[in-house]
Amino acid sequence: MNFCSHCGQSVRLRIPQGDSLARHVCAACGTIHYQNPKIVAGCIAVHGGRVLLCRRAIAPRSGLWTIPAGFMENGETVAEAAARETREEAMAAVTVGGLYALYNLPHRNQVYMIFTGALPTPHCAAGSETLEAALVEEEEIPWDELAFRVVTKSLQRFFADRRRGRFEAYMDTLEAAPVR
Amino acid sequence: MNFCSHCGQSVRLRIPQGDSLARHVCAACGTIHYQNPKIVAGCIAVHGGRVLLCRRAIAPRSGLWTIPAGFMENGETVAEAAARETREEAMAAVTVGGLYALYNLPHRNQVYMIFTGALPTPHCAAGSETLEAALVEEEEIPWDELAFRVVTKSLQRFFADRRRGRFEAYMDTLEAAPVR
Repeated sequence: MNFCSHCGQSVRLRIPQGDSLARHVCAACGTIHYQNPKIVAGCIAVHGGRVLLCRRAIAPRSGLWTIPAGFMENGETVAEAAARETREEAMAAVTVGGLYALYNLPHRNQVYMIFTGALPTPHCAAGSETLEAALVEEEEIPWDELAFRVVTKSLQRFFADRRRGRFEAYMDTLEAAPVR
Repeated sequence: MNFCSHCGQSVRLRIPQGDSLARHVCAACGTIHYQNPKIVAGCIAVHGGRVLLCRRAIAPRSGLWTIPAGFMENGETVAEAAARETREEAMAAVTVGGLYALYNLPHRNQVYMIFTGALPTPHCAAGSETLEAALVEEEEIPWDELAFRVVTKSLQRFFADRRRGRFEAYMDTLEAAPVR
């Protein structure tokens, strides 16, 4: 951030009075520009035991598989965001259930909130950011071609919970991945 | 938003290609400035059955009571944010437990995430944004002087859950309050 989005003058990084963190503060009009984490809402959407996956058509991780997920927008609820992403990425109408997993990604300033959901019909198709959408059995999950650690972890947990017959909401933190 | 925080030129509200919502887009450098909901993290912190409350020293709702809560910062987890707010507002060291309540406030572009927590000691004191901090019994809660609906609702639920001996995480949506 270089300029004030309110008045267009330069911003400086400094600690405002009464604050403890450095913020981008406008040298002209004094506006403090806070930056905060974003919510990524997603859904493990199920029909007849199969899980809805999308192969990504866009960066990052184009060509790899994910559950429907994306940035929550202003004016919606977290569950509405998860349903919207499922509709946009997989053209599927999901009935969103409970919050299943929360992942903190402090190195990315993101909080993933993943719901379970039910698909009344098996209809799905590739949205504009998706190469293909598919309902897959547990045995068919492309574990080596999943786009994000959050997807791998939440699907592993989901299937483990399903085998033991009890789903339990959980919370986890993923630190930055080791550089290879 | 009037100006591009990257290059300082004017932004226009328009729908970027491939998007479905209007965004502030820089007419000069093309940067798209997304705006997303913010997370407010809070804590129902308990010591010996009493709940930690703070009387606000700042707007909005200065002079009214709240549980410790505030905007999550970049680089922290939601639970860390709840613990930090408890430390800053009530000078209290809380051991944050599970996520207890999630409130969508779509009209404010906020998501409240409220944890339960345990205070190993009864120590608390007013932080810089607080007039006074206190541990109060259920019978002492100033129901008519609570700062926010989210606080009222989560405390009501908390005490009801405590009476029945079972705490259950829940999720709710608060629409804009009726104008009086």
